[in-house]
Amino acid sequence: MVDRFKVSILLDYYGCLLTAKQLDIMTMYFNEDLSLAEIAEINQTSRQAIHDLTKRCYKQLVSYEEKLKLLQKSNIRKKLKEDLIDKLNVYSIEEEPKVLINETLEEILNA
Amino acid sequence: MVDRFKVSILLDYYGCLLTAKQLDIMTMYFNEDLSLAEIAEINQTSRQAIHDLTKRCYKQLVSYEEKLKLLQKSNIRKKLKEDLIDKLNVYSIEEEPKVLINETLEEILNA
Repeated sequence: MVDRFKVSILLDYYGCLLTAKQLDIMTMYFNEDLSLAEIAEINQTSRQAIHDLTKRCYKQLVSYEEKLKLLQKSNIRKKLKEDLIDKLNVYSIEEEPKVLINETLEEILNA
Repeated sequence: MVDRFKVSILLDYYGCLLTAKQLDIMTMYFNEDLSLAEIAEINQTSRQAIHDLTKRCYKQLVSYEEKLKLLQKSNIRKKLKEDLIDKLNVYSIEEEPKVLINETLEEILNA
C-alpha cells in the first residue's frame, strides 16, 4: 500500500523531474484524490494506462529519493535546527539575536 | 566553452542520477582531466562516442540544475549563514553558544 502523504511530499521534491503530463496525473491521483477512472476519462485513455503510469512514476520518485535523499536531508536539517534552538535556551541570549537566528534557520531550511 | 569547475560541482550534486558508466566517464574527463582519446581507449570505443556522451551528460546535468536548483539553493544557504554570523557579531553572545551556532549551521549546510 502506497503512503499517499509520502508520495505527495516526494512530488514536492521530484515532481519537476517528471514530464508535465506525468506530474499532472500524479497530482490528480495523489493530491486531488481523483479516482483512476476519473483521471482516465479526463485524459481520454484507459484506467489501466493511468494505473500503470502512477505505478511507474511512483517508482521513479522513490528512486530519485534513494539517490538524491532530499527528503531525508530536509528532515536532518529540521532536526539540527530544533536541537540548536533547544540547546540555545540554556544561554542568556537577548531576544533580538534569538529571533534573528530563528528566522535565518527557517529561511535556510526553506531555501 | 564548458566550465570544468562548474561541471565538477554539478557532478557532485547530480552524478548519482547518471548511469555508473556515464558517471565514470564524466569523472575521468572533468575531474581527472583525461583526454577524450585516453578515455576512448580505456572504454574500447571511439573518441567521438566519448565526446557525444560527455556532451549529452553535461546537458543532462545542466537540466537537473535548472529543475532542482540544488547548487543555487546551496549557495543561498551559504549566504544566509554568512549574513547571520555577521549580524550576530554586534551582539554580546558568549563564546559557547556562538560556536554551537556556527557548528550547527555548518552541519545543516553539509546535510
